Amino acid sequence: MANSSQASLPERIVAAVRSVVGSGPVALHEPRFGGNEWAYVKECLDSTFVSSVGKFVDRFEADLAAYTGAKHAVAVVNGTAALHVALLLAGVESGDEVLVPALSFVATANSVTYCGAIPHFIDSEESTLGVDAAALRHYLSSITELSGGYCINRATGRVIRAVVPMHAFGHPANIEAMLSVARDFQLVLVEDAAESLGSTINGRHTGTFGLMGTLSFNGNKTITTAGGGAIITNDANLAKRAKHLTTTAKVAHRWEYFHDEIGFNYRLPNINAALGCAQLEQLPAFLESKRRLYEGYKIAFDRIAETRLMSEPAGCRSNYWLQVLLLDATAAFERDAILSATNDTGLMTRPAWALMHRLPPFKSSPKMALPVAESLERRLINLPSSAFLDPTGML
Amino acid sequence: MANSSQASLPERIVAAVRSVVGSGPVALHEPRFGGNEWAYVKECLDSTFVSSVGKFVDRFEADLAAYTGAKHAVAVVNGTAALHVALLLAGVESGDEVLVPALSFVATANSVTYCGAIPHFIDSEESTLGVDAAALRHYLSSITELSGGYCINRATGRVIRAVVPMHAFGHPANIEAMLSVARDFQLVLVEDAAESLGSTINGRHTGTFGLMGTLSFNGNKTITTAGGGAIITNDANLAKRAKHLTTTAKVAHRWEYFHDEIGFNYRLPNINAALGCAQLEQLPAFLESKRRLYEGYKIAFDRIAETRLMSEPAGCRSNYWLQVLLLDATAAFERDAILSATNDTGLMTRPAWALMHRLPPFKSSPKMALPVAESLERRLINLPSSAFLDPTGML
Repeated sequence: MANSSQASLPERIVAAVRSVVGSGPVALHEPRFGGNEWAYVKECLDSTFVSSVGKFVDRFEADLAAYTGAKHAVAVVNGTAALHVALLLAGVESGDEVLVPALSFVATANSVTYCGAIPHFIDSEESTLGVDAAALRHYLSSITELSGGYCINRATGRVIRAVVPMHAFGHPANIEAMLSVARDFQLVLVEDAAESLGSTINGRHTGTFGLMGTLSFNGNKTITTAGGGAIITNDANLAKRAKHLTTTAKVAHRWEYFHDEIGFNYRLPNINAALGCAQLEQLPAFLESKRRLYEGYKIAFDRIAETRLMSEPAGCRSNYWLQVLLLDATAAFERDAILSATNDTGLMTRPAWALMHRLPPFKSSPKMALPVAESLERRLINLPSSAFLDPTGML
Repeated sequence: MANSSQASLPERIVAAVRSVVGSGPVALHEPRFGGNEWAYVKECLDSTFVSSVGKFVDRFEADLAAYTGAKHAVAVVNGTAALHVALLLAGVESGDEVLVPALSFVATANSVTYCGAIPHFIDSEESTLGVDAAALRHYLSSITELSGGYCINRATGRVIRAVVPMHAFGHPANIEAMLSVARDFQLVLVEDAAESLGSTINGRHTGTFGLMGTLSFNGNKTITTAGGGAIITNDANLAKRAKHLTTTAKVAHRWEYFHDEIGFNYRLPNINAALGCAQLEQLPAFLESKRRLYEGYKIAFDRIAETRLMSEPAGCRSNYWLQVLLLDATAAFERDAILSATNDTGLMTRPAWALMHRLPPFKSSPKMALPVAESLERRLINLPSSAFLDPTGML
């Protein structure tokens, strides 16, 4: 019945999801602890090195660097903290503007404000869900001027210091085009790769193209440390500075407590890093299963003409962190009915984040025209995406 | 030999510590996981609720409220985050001044700067190691004026918004006298109780006297969540606001991601809260053992005329988080030799924190005369303080 042409779009979507994930309640994204998590956490407890001293933080940083191909990784308490410190190290100062996508989790914009700077919202492109480099170039050409090596917003007089492309739902943004824009407009590029661990562009890991990249290991991410994040970079000095700033800027000494600048208590505890080490060992298997889940959804949704399942951009491998279903413009009015129907039957789905420029704290922030982000907001639905939903049952 | 009068002061101090803690290397403060830590952490892993969703956060908050007698507790990622948000909720705004002890861990001053405010350093008293209320009253009388209900620093023209007494090393500050000063000078009082879980004043828990109090469960604290902290308060609205601000200010909704103000990613993960629940069950035993360790040190150091072991202030129960040895003024010149001798032989000791007004980021901050803090800085040594060092072997 739900597959018949008489069925409503919400009914057909519920049936399509059910055909892939089976019956019963299904969360949007849950972790799976099937590896060495317990062994490593127990090792922490037995050693009593649960906190900031301990070998798992060092190992997690080394493992992250090896996995992503970045020369350095600095583990921190969450992805927001990673962004905050990366922006400070990018030179973002009070009163600057920083270009961030309107279509992102609130951390991208909040971290700009933690530096005393102002987020300046930019549009996305439908092909990647990431920022639209061509539209941004056109926009910056019309509103900025270069002066003394700085990109100045002519309307506000403020320096536009940096741009933070975000790899939305794990799909790589067009980072090469963004690097070109950043170069031409004297912007520092920091990659918000919170959602894209395991996603690559021409074989190179997301987060390693900009001056720095930031990762998140929140409970809903592809791998989790319960709460956690990291800064990755190829610059040894920035990595050293990141470690210093995230550990209260304490100067190393046998017993003295001397801090040479304003720092932050952003250390990742050892016990959380232990979880991360065990999770990272399983990342390749998680990625394979998430890809098979995508393939299962792809078959199911190819039969529903009003929808399109987001596929990885050309030349890219996506981690398929959260599966993205896009409604045709003519079906956008059914978005909330679909969200209700799926959630009512225990299939957890959600729309895109409310766009940043609509949030009360950012209503007066500068922004470019955001037609694509606004269209995606009306049409985007995230489907249940846990790796263990792999319909081939391999995880 | 080390007990003979011919032995040097460093030698006699090493021998005194060794007489209490025995031979072998001894850390300054290590946790002990002898309770339900494994069971609760494993329950988290088995349920997969390791992150922000899960029952241990709720339980830890309820247990903390019950233990401290505060009506509400909000668990956060560390004590620094707790202070930051407590100060924001106290109304601290950019350009304000906040009175904080020069003798404190750097988090007390840093959290003021995170609000865009300026720390204003105040002196301590030797009897409690906390801020000196009488000296502060005298100082404020001479440098401030009340105008429109605000306390104005006449020299800077800035509002002095709040005062943050800190219960140093677990010894309660003279909070009643500080409340009187705060009332008379229109200051909000926030208690930094990061070090004083288990410490009471006339039977009432530290951190429950001010508008809010903040706790820390860092790895070196009396109980630990690896990294963690909490805000405690009797004000239901402040507790609700604290929860909102520390969870990205997301408005509750079935699927929408809408944030109504600038918030923070300061949630304590469930797995860390699980550790906290198990640790809190053991707190009474830890406190008893730390008291017996104090009694052991007291006997040993009563024999060394140049030293005095810090005892709990009158009317107070201290948690004896870090044992404090004070050198006589005439012996202060031996501080670094004592630190070397103890650390060289594997007994981890440390001096007080470098006073805040000496740190580069705070060199231009306003301050009162700090004779007592400066004297304590020259004379204070923390001794190994882990609960399991209890010389009666009861832990």
